[in-house]
Amino acid sequence: MIVVMNIDSTAKQIEAVNKQLDKLGFKTHIIRGVNRIVIGAVGDRQAVDSSLEQMPGVERVVPIMKPFKLVSRELQEENSIIDVRGISIGGDSIVIISGPCAVESREQLLAAARFVKKAGAHILRGGAYKPRTSPYSFQGLEEKGLQLLKEVSLETGLPTITEVIDEYSLERALNYVDILQIGARNMQNFRLLKKAGQTGKPILLKRGMSATIEEWLMAAEYIMCEGNDKIILCERGIRTFETYTRNTLDLSAVPLVKRLSHLPVIVDPSHATGDRQLVLPMSQAAIAAGADGLILEMHPEPGKALCDGAQSLDPGELVRLMEQLHKMMPAVGRYMAQ
Amino acid sequence: MIVVMNIDSTAKQIEAVNKQLDKLGFKTHIIRGVNRIVIGAVGDRQAVDSSLEQMPGVERVVPIMKPFKLVSRELQEENSIIDVRGISIGGDSIVIISGPCAVESREQLLAAARFVKKAGAHILRGGAYKPRTSPYSFQGLEEKGLQLLKEVSLETGLPTITEVIDEYSLERALNYVDILQIGARNMQNFRLLKKAGQTGKPILLKRGMSATIEEWLMAAEYIMCEGNDKIILCERGIRTFETYTRNTLDLSAVPLVKRLSHLPVIVDPSHATGDRQLVLPMSQAAIAAGADGLILEMHPEPGKALCDGAQSLDPGELVRLMEQLHKMMPAVGRYMAQ
Amino acid sequence: MIVVMNIDSTAKQIEAVNKQLDKLGFKTHIIRGVNRIVIGAVGDRQAVDSSLEQMPGVERVVPIMKPFKLVSRELQEENSIIDVRGISIGGDSIVIISGPCAVESREQLLAAARFVKKAGAHILRGGAYKPRTSPYSFQGLEEKGLQLLKEVSLETGLPTITEVIDEYSLERALNYVDILQIGARNMQNFRLLKKAGQTGKPILLKRGMSATIEEWLMAAEYIMCEGNDKIILCERGIRTFETYTRNTLDLSAVPLVKRLSHLPVIVDPSHATGDRQLVLPMSQAAIAAGADGLILEMHPEPGKALCDGAQSLDPGELVRLMEQLHKMMPAVGRYMAQ
Amino acid sequence: MIVVMNIDSTAKQIEAVNKQLDKLGFKTHIIRGVNRIVIGAVGDRQAVDSSLEQMPGVERVVPIMKPFKLVSRELQEENSIIDVRGISIGGDSIVIISGPCAVESREQLLAAARFVKKAGAHILRGGAYKPRTSPYSFQGLEEKGLQLLKEVSLETGLPTITEVIDEYSLERALNYVDILQIGARNMQNFRLLKKAGQTGKPILLKRGMSATIEEWLMAAEYIMCEGNDKIILCERGIRTFETYTRNTLDLSAVPLVKRLSHLPVIVDPSHATGDRQLVLPMSQAAIAAGADGLILEMHPEPGKALCDGAQSLDPGELVRLMEQLHKMMPAVGRYMAQ
Repeated sequence: MIVVMNIDSTAKQIEAVNKQLDKLGFKTHIIRGVNRIVIGAVGDRQAVDSSLEQMPGVERVVPIMKPFKLVSRELQEENSIIDVRGISIGGDSIVIISGPCAVESREQLLAAARFVKKAGAHILRGGAYKPRTSPYSFQGLEEKGLQLLKEVSLETGLPTITEVIDEYSLERALNYVDILQIGARNMQNFRLLKKAGQTGKPILLKRGMSATIEEWLMAAEYIMCEGNDKIILCERGIRTFETYTRNTLDLSAVPLVKRLSHLPVIVDPSHATGDRQLVLPMSQAAIAAGADGLILEMHPEPGKALCDGAQSLDPGELVRLMEQLHKMMPAVGRYMAQ
Repeated sequence: MIVVMNIDSTAKQIEAVNKQLDKLGFKTHIIRGVNRIVIGAVGDRQAVDSSLEQMPGVERVVPIMKPFKLVSRELQEENSIIDVRGISIGGDSIVIISGPCAVESREQLLAAARFVKKAGAHILRGGAYKPRTSPYSFQGLEEKGLQLLKEVSLETGLPTITEVIDEYSLERALNYVDILQIGARNMQNFRLLKKAGQTGKPILLKRGMSATIEEWLMAAEYIMCEGNDKIILCERGIRTFETYTRNTLDLSAVPLVKRLSHLPVIVDPSHATGDRQLVLPMSQAAIAAGADGLILEMHPEPGKALCDGAQSLDPGELVRLMEQLHKMMPAVGRYMAQ
Repeated sequence: MIVVMNIDSTAKQIEAVNKQLDKLGFKTHIIRGVNRIVIGAVGDRQAVDSSLEQMPGVERVVPIMKPFKLVSRELQEENSIIDVRGISIGGDSIVIISGPCAVESREQLLAAARFVKKAGAHILRGGAYKPRTSPYSFQGLEEKGLQLLKEVSLETGLPTITEVIDEYSLERALNYVDILQIGARNMQNFRLLKKAGQTGKPILLKRGMSATIEEWLMAAEYIMCEGNDKIILCERGIRTFETYTRNTLDLSAVPLVKRLSHLPVIVDPSHATGDRQLVLPMSQAAIAAGADGLILEMHPEPGKALCDGAQSLDPGELVRLMEQLHKMMPAVGRYMAQ
Repeated sequence: MIVVMNIDSTAKQIEAVNKQLDKLGFKTHIIRGVNRIVIGAVGDRQAVDSSLEQMPGVERVVPIMKPFKLVSRELQEENSIIDVRGISIGGDSIVIISGPCAVESREQLLAAARFVKKAGAHILRGGAYKPRTSPYSFQGLEEKGLQLLKEVSLETGLPTITEVIDEYSLERALNYVDILQIGARNMQNFRLLKKAGQTGKPILLKRGMSATIEEWLMAAEYIMCEGNDKIILCERGIRTFETYTRNTLDLSAVPLVKRLSHLPVIVDPSHATGDRQLVLPMSQAAIAAGADGLILEMHPEPGKALCDGAQSLDPGELVRLMEQLHKMMPAVGRYMAQ
């Protein structure tokens, strides 16, 4: 940690900061520059909160260490590989999750699941509890939706993932699905993160719409702190000034996060772009950038979808996308999970 | 609602969209332009979800109506005025909420409350459940903090506000404080919004860090849908590329939201700027922009604060700020609440 | 400057960085932390470019000093006051610049100028060279517009300001107006900045739509480096995700820049909001935040404006705004310039 | 164009808007909704500026048509292919541009060019006029740099590209290089765009740091309006809140712009990320997203670069990147240009 003192800080103020750092267990080094005095402090950043910046004479405090620990690549050099009923996420193989935005009915979900399986994708997604911007929009089938996910999973053999939006839906979902998804809006719902950490289940943690990479990794740290290391990160676009796409897919985050952390990273091009026609090129781009998998919205009949129809692939489009991915994966040293 | 058809859409496609709109209860008008056919549709926007955009030949759907209803100024022309133990929020008078980021101890809170009262501010704030980016940071005293708020409120007569971060803390807080705050990170925690709506208590709803004004008002709509119209909106800065301030305080949102909605709007310059020295000028600016109040962090000894010390006023600064506000309010047609 | 070494950097790499810093004239201090070695380097930051970050073993380089010098408050403690034909900008008095987006005709400009004067504003604005997003939009009257500005200035006695968009228009404008404006799109047109610096004329430098405060001050530094210290900074809104307003007016930048720099700062609420109804509240807010003046679009008949009609005040609105400002200024320790 | 009237607009106001639209040559259709009256207007959007929004009773004006014409895919269905000394940009083959950020010396540039050629890249880049944030940074060798580009081009046979930053440098560069680059900071320097349009030379037009896709295409429209259709668009990252990368590479813009426009699109992963280690994965991702080429910073000795060393590949890294691209291109239906 570096403490930069004001240009007009006094010897007494410097002394006070030095003492305070000493008290907090830091070893200090005073560096006298031409215009500024800077204090280098060696110790545990967690020991300091914001009080230091408040001390008279202090201009600012510059942290040196990254704040995340358990999720960091420095702690664990090799990739974490998450096992979901025999499917590995985070190794050399690529995992494709697909299915409708929302579970709408047994027929719809089963039809979707069969298309997912036939196309060669690995895991079925389907929303039972839907976080919707408007209270007047369809909010999901709730527990009924979870039951359908379970039934369809038994019938098709596909593992399943669903979003949980609070402690209640998390507890319900535990018994029905294989992966719990924490959505962008809940990335800093810390209570939910802690609960997710206590389940021991695989957690797919989406990046918040305006979350920095550091905040995203800190959210994962919350889960891991509770003893659950089965975390799959998911980049799904960030909010920027550009409005032609729903969000801006930040693909650079993929290789960057994989450098900073040992956790697997997958990409959601459907929510990121909000535009069905962009899903194929951005899926290819995600894999080329190093993603460990994709989560893709697909609806048996997108024109009748109760939500997010505009970004859902139809079954034929999913097949073509899978074929195209099969073709390109070996060229970037990856292969489709079995 | 306006449906813009593709440049190469066929007569059959136009016919199909027309029929679908008819089925959804819309009255349609076809407008033939030079390059485009556009269909004007009159009816209830809530009846349509995203399926229309998915129909062959449709380029895009342009909504005309705003999606919020209950919170809108069109529904209720006069200002909503929220009563908090005799203090009115949303009328001509200005309400000042102040206190520490976190409740740390009985001594600290009581000292803070006495300074708040002495300075002439109206409501005491204090965090008992703290949403923190890092799991390693101080997370609040939880129920113990709520008890202290109650005790100090009884002792000083000040009404209180505290942040709730999930259903559990909401239920706890109900018995201890006068206003429940929903923070920026939970603005789209829809379950929490619904629960808040069911309490009937005054709710302070902070704008999400990357929430549009429309999303913010839709979040308020969630609360109001449940029958609770005691909502106070709070602008607290949005996330932008600028890093010199913690967030970018969007003061234009104040007069804009007051035009769109009948709800009161207050401003939090402490969190928006993250910089104690900016709190005075931005407090003045907020009132000049039309805000109905302020929420200001103040700590008896900012240098010892367990969180957000850098943005906390000390007691003397709060006094000076109140004096300055007293001076300027009449010049913009407002006065300090008694 | 702080050089943070990689967790696995070798003694040899540290030695090499140390030597390089020595060669660049820096005095170094090695700080050995638990996980990291950090090198504190004292010297002239300008001596280093990016090569240091490229050296093996270096994780990152953290600058300590601000990069701007001549414009900085550290160099000159007292406010710069710019004189424009007897009107002082940057002192205690507030200066109001007003007029149409574009000069359209002699009649229009003269009418505007008379309203500006009658309302008690101080300087006439009018665009002769218009930077327009579309090549099909009205591009301004060019030199004819400059001549009209001169004529109307002679007739009314008002000083004038106009935007220059390249070296050519800058050279033309020199003979016709009192202040040269460099617009948001040209804030990093460095050639134009240098030329502006060579004129010795007062320069109004708008902040770029996505410029950080640091970049903005560095742009001013370009002008001042050429020997011209008559610089007026102008905050005019930054680009964010919010679309209800044209841009997001960053009023916190006003007190912040005035802390960092000795230059005057004015605010343009017209372009920032793009919404006539927001101009009055945001003008008040700007003054309350500490701005030294305002630049306001006004058109004799906004409904007939060739550009930016939606954000232009009409003459009556300007009068009411001036009256309101007169009332509030003393309450924040300012007064209207004579 | 759709004109939405206020909820309380009067019959007289509606009549007036109708008349005004009629006068502007629009055919109108009045649509009476439950709460609102909406006027559909068919005609040439360019005929209207902002005056309509100013008319009493008008809430807002919603444009239907895209504002760009000449660059649009609607006007020209097939891809534009730009020929640069026998190299085609915009067809099935991929073009790689590489070289140093700045031309520093004959030795440096010649060394770089030889590495570029040996690696199999096609065009040499090198900056002679450098737009730098700080006036104290290296500003380029200017005309001397152009001469070196010419000499090295003659010696190696590589076509060249350099950035022009104003009319003066544009006129100089015309005689020395094959492609003129307009940088992000000048994307809305309209005078420069017009001049570039008049040269008839291939123009590489970078997207502005905060430019929407629409503004970017309108900037290209400026060039094409002047009769120059040899335009190569270049995505180089946009400014967002994320600071771990220099900018946020918006790869979704690639397939999106290729859908909206017939112009070729290339990608600059070096400036977008500012991080050498991200250049390979993001290069692959760009090609997978449908880019027609890449522009990559490479320096013979990055550790000694006068600018942007941190993002420059070294010669070995360029070779490995080219090998990797060779391998993956066929998998996405592309091949390396010869």
